[in-house]
Amino acid sequence: MSLPTATSPSFARPVSTVAIVGAGSVGATLAYAALVRGAARRVVLYDVNAAKVKAEAADIGHGIEFISQATIEGSDDIEICRDADIVVFTAGAKQHPGQSRMELAATTVGLVKKVLPTLVDIAPRAVHMMVTNPVDVVTYAAQKITGLPPNQIFGSGTVLDSSRLRFLISRECGVAVQNVHAYVLGEHGDSEVPMWSSASIGGVPLLEWLGPDGSPMFTDGVRERLGHDVVHAAYSIIEGKGATNYAVGLAVTRIIEAILRNEHRVLPVSTRIDDEFLGISDVCLSMPTIVDAMGARERLGLPMSQREMDLLRVSAAHIRDAARTLGF
Amino acid sequence: MSLPTATSPSFARPVSTVAIVGAGSVGATLAYAALVRGAARRVVLYDVNAAKVKAEAADIGHGIEFISQATIEGSDDIEICRDADIVVFTAGAKQHPGQSRMELAATTVGLVKKVLPTLVDIAPRAVHMMVTNPVDVVTYAAQKITGLPPNQIFGSGTVLDSSRLRFLISRECGVAVQNVHAYVLGEHGDSEVPMWSSASIGGVPLLEWLGPDGSPMFTDGVRERLGHDVVHAAYSIIEGKGATNYAVGLAVTRIIEAILRNEHRVLPVSTRIDDEFLGISDVCLSMPTIVDAMGARERLGLPMSQREMDLLRVSAAHIRDAARTLGF
Amino acid sequence: MSLPTATSPSFARPVSTVAIVGAGSVGATLAYAALVRGAARRVVLYDVNAAKVKAEAADIGHGIEFISQATIEGSDDIEICRDADIVVFTAGAKQHPGQSRMELAATTVGLVKKVLPTLVDIAPRAVHMMVTNPVDVVTYAAQKITGLPPNQIFGSGTVLDSSRLRFLISRECGVAVQNVHAYVLGEHGDSEVPMWSSASIGGVPLLEWLGPDGSPMFTDGVRERLGHDVVHAAYSIIEGKGATNYAVGLAVTRIIEAILRNEHRVLPVSTRIDDEFLGISDVCLSMPTIVDAMGARERLGLPMSQREMDLLRVSAAHIRDAARTLGF
Amino acid sequence: MSLPTATSPSFARPVSTVAIVGAGSVGATLAYAALVRGAARRVVLYDVNAAKVKAEAADIGHGIEFISQATIEGSDDIEICRDADIVVFTAGAKQHPGQSRMELAATTVGLVKKVLPTLVDIAPRAVHMMVTNPVDVVTYAAQKITGLPPNQIFGSGTVLDSSRLRFLISRECGVAVQNVHAYVLGEHGDSEVPMWSSASIGGVPLLEWLGPDGSPMFTDGVRERLGHDVVHAAYSIIEGKGATNYAVGLAVTRIIEAILRNEHRVLPVSTRIDDEFLGISDVCLSMPTIVDAMGARERLGLPMSQREMDLLRVSAAHIRDAARTLGF
Repeated sequence: MSLPTATSPSFARPVSTVAIVGAGSVGATLAYAALVRGAARRVVLYDVNAAKVKAEAADIGHGIEFISQATIEGSDDIEICRDADIVVFTAGAKQHPGQSRMELAATTVGLVKKVLPTLVDIAPRAVHMMVTNPVDVVTYAAQKITGLPPNQIFGSGTVLDSSRLRFLISRECGVAVQNVHAYVLGEHGDSEVPMWSSASIGGVPLLEWLGPDGSPMFTDGVRERLGHDVVHAAYSIIEGKGATNYAVGLAVTRIIEAILRNEHRVLPVSTRIDDEFLGISDVCLSMPTIVDAMGARERLGLPMSQREMDLLRVSAAHIRDAARTLGF
Repeated sequence: MSLPTATSPSFARPVSTVAIVGAGSVGATLAYAALVRGAARRVVLYDVNAAKVKAEAADIGHGIEFISQATIEGSDDIEICRDADIVVFTAGAKQHPGQSRMELAATTVGLVKKVLPTLVDIAPRAVHMMVTNPVDVVTYAAQKITGLPPNQIFGSGTVLDSSRLRFLISRECGVAVQNVHAYVLGEHGDSEVPMWSSASIGGVPLLEWLGPDGSPMFTDGVRERLGHDVVHAAYSIIEGKGATNYAVGLAVTRIIEAILRNEHRVLPVSTRIDDEFLGISDVCLSMPTIVDAMGARERLGLPMSQREMDLLRVSAAHIRDAARTLGF
Repeated sequence: MSLPTATSPSFARPVSTVAIVGAGSVGATLAYAALVRGAARRVVLYDVNAAKVKAEAADIGHGIEFISQATIEGSDDIEICRDADIVVFTAGAKQHPGQSRMELAATTVGLVKKVLPTLVDIAPRAVHMMVTNPVDVVTYAAQKITGLPPNQIFGSGTVLDSSRLRFLISRECGVAVQNVHAYVLGEHGDSEVPMWSSASIGGVPLLEWLGPDGSPMFTDGVRERLGHDVVHAAYSIIEGKGATNYAVGLAVTRIIEAILRNEHRVLPVSTRIDDEFLGISDVCLSMPTIVDAMGARERLGLPMSQREMDLLRVSAAHIRDAARTLGF
Repeated sequence: MSLPTATSPSFARPVSTVAIVGAGSVGATLAYAALVRGAARRVVLYDVNAAKVKAEAADIGHGIEFISQATIEGSDDIEICRDADIVVFTAGAKQHPGQSRMELAATTVGLVKKVLPTLVDIAPRAVHMMVTNPVDVVTYAAQKITGLPPNQIFGSGTVLDSSRLRFLISRECGVAVQNVHAYVLGEHGDSEVPMWSSASIGGVPLLEWLGPDGSPMFTDGVRERLGHDVVHAAYSIIEGKGATNYAVGLAVTRIIEAILRNEHRVLPVSTRIDDEFLGISDVCLSMPTIVDAMGARERLGLPMSQREMDLLRVSAAHIRDAARTLGF
């Protein structure tokens, strides 16, 4: 029926591939979000549980008809990740209600030690992104284990936390979240720091934003409440539904877009920091960083209040201690 | 800070609202898919489990920053569904490995009886779509209970099954799923019927599609295998991951788009059939149907082989028996 | 072939309609951009030139297959705009190379006087947006002519100019334009004012952004150059291609999205200003304004330098003089 | 301000690049459509008119803020096309009202001879797509001139004509254009052939589709009218607006997507045909063809009526004669 055509197989360029390690709730939802958004056109999903990973890939694949063309494959053979452009590491133990992110560390770091060298070996040109918690400690360990340059291996950090803060501010002031700009920096965890001094709404400094009564809306009390809500958002979602997966799927999809499209986008990802001015060194934590095809590149010199700097140092110490406890 | 502006509150048109009843795996994933796809701009999620429904809405809401502007709210108060444009009913018991869809019927129909009248009351102008299984029986019961015209209340039917069949055909022939056209009709369940005689690939009748060896690719054996795989896809996914949610989220999103955008799109949804020619009456099952702002409107007169018609009648009888057993 | 179905025609909700007045380069490209972006699902195009408006609608309509479902109609009968949700006024004389925007005013205002009352009459619940230049004068006249509340009738203002400034800053600092925030305010024209004091890049104040040599990148000289380039962008594009249409199509599409999706988005649109603090009154010009389903609502209290305020007052005087000259 | 980071520049993968040759109405609108659709992330526009090409690129670039991240550059230096993944050739003389597509041939073929070898030289791994009319003759000549394998160099063919036919059928039967499947094959021009025998609507053969009165809707008279309207659509659009650009921009964007995303999509593109069964050889014309990262690959064996085959042979002879007249 179809006529053979002469082809010159040397010229075709392979479609960009995103490899996701771990087909748990986060990994599978990330695959879904990345495909539905059109951020990735080829996704491979790797998990040691063959039945699970194939079921997730099939369930997503059956929906491809409804979005733009793409492919998804699932396998328990790590070879499926070969030559990926991005490797996203989501494997790890599930966070239980009440359990701190730090308590999950030891098991997960052991898993990273076991799996990551193979991934770097079979996908040597990939940007490697760690999503597994405690993401800052895991990223630090992963960088040590692989010896990759810090731009090529980093963590998803506080991209999600910042999104949560922006969402809460948006609801408070009634302005679209896309016009609200605010970072949560430091640890992706209990010691994270909302950066109020540089936050803004439609170009107006958040600290000068007035409420309906004409006085500043974001008082100490409001800021404390919002900061608390951000830190505890994950806990309350886990209590309500057993895990978080939807927002993190979109947050990591955004980072993937910044890499595959070479966007030079500023995102608070977790990278190895050695900053004399801040007095923070030999640790991974989130700072506003330019992300593009080269991975996590330059950090921005965000102005901070004295208190914000102090809190970041505390956060850094917290992460460093955890890493040291785990032998890194 | 901001100056009050004279407003004429009468002119603003409310944003279209999709109400999703049930914040289980299907309902929550549907909310996510509909928002990420941009099919809906306002989604409300209703579930009797307040902690769960609020957690799902929060987890999705935290990701809004990464997509285009939209809102999502979750509540255990059914009033949240008031004045919705579409009500999607996903509530019901979870399907367990090995359990047939029909075994879930009694509980679910009881739930429909209890909840649906209120939904029709508070969202009288909505198109009501049933997704809960066994969807054909549930849709039949729902139509009887509400007395709504058949176009205004229908089931998601075999939109997903058809997508699965197209996916499997696509993999077999190496052509994009968007160019593969094939329906699965009848019951959304074990008696469903792949419509091979009208299936086509890029305009070529599937039955005439040639394989690499120059002989027809879709032999009786291949068709039987694919038909089997479609019917058992849900079972094997449930075995592997405990539930299906991703593809159904996109399938129902497609139906939502057809309604909200008044698309006149042909989709195999489940509606009340009384067809003298086919000899099928007083039952709900899936046939290719034009879906638009008025809901599920005209059915297409799809040509069928004698065997396909026979199998559809068997499927209809199967659904009708189940409905009768349940007192409908 | 298809079976008639009982319908209850009272429940269906009409699809949102965007009416575009004028099928010139800007109007037609706007229709295209709004449909390709999925911002509008039903676009009607009105122009006195029947052959032209039908040709534009046909040329766009033939491409609907390649995007998501939508409709476009063109007519020389203004009735096609009836019951629109948004009316975008793009009709007017074409800007010639070297000609100032102000010189086009008299003809255009005459056109507005003739056509707008009918539009308000047949689309009374619409938000009316003026795009025709000189947009600030036209908006002021349009508001006087119609007597509509200022939120319901406004101009596209400096949304495009701000986009141009952000684009130029982005290229200068190598950060994604989505992370660059800067307004151009005042007149959409020669007296417009770049707001450097509130501009920022990824949260860092633009004035503190350091170049590769460690000194501030955006010196007086660089800012003057960029400001000049923004003001003259339209002139140089008109010289090169005879008109501007692509970016303005996307800028106005963004405003349409903010309205139809009720986004509460901050956009520098042109509205009637009476601001004691600034000392600017009885004039239309662009200030950061929250735009949603109610149109252009509250203005933000953006911090400004003394010089920026002075330049805004000059810009306001410039627009006011033009309006007075035209008898408004 | 920003800290230098160690980088390993060897690993980053370049963003896919679409080079567009010719910044006329078609080339510029294609650049716009491809970026707004997200089909391309890096577009380079080449034209000998430096002022024009820079103005078009600037006008599009100023709108990038409103879409997802991408870049566009314009230059009169052909070097800008170096290492492109796709080269789209749109350069040529503008079609005037009343002028047949064939009359434009000689000038355009001369242009192809002059420019194309350089493009193949600097973008050797690109898929080359000819859009300039008469596209079938131009494609034939281009293939001869370059000696590239037929899959690597092909014409946009009747993708647009097929879209026009589907649009007209959709309006006639009231079903979404996405559910209407019909090809126009042969020449992209006056001798093109609507393939009625394989056309279908939602799976129903078009020839069996019934109208409201219960008799076949697409009678000989209706088909003749629609066929006529498709052939004359371009002429009437050119009469009304001087050129066609919007639909062709989306049609070519669809082909670009099929290539960059390796979609295996069936599209009626123009390729070199040597088909014994049809009795058509040594000519380029449009047939349903699988398009993916390797370009235009296998042709489908679409069933045809005797009359359709006859008309295709007439169309082929028409194109072949034109090519011979031009010395190919």
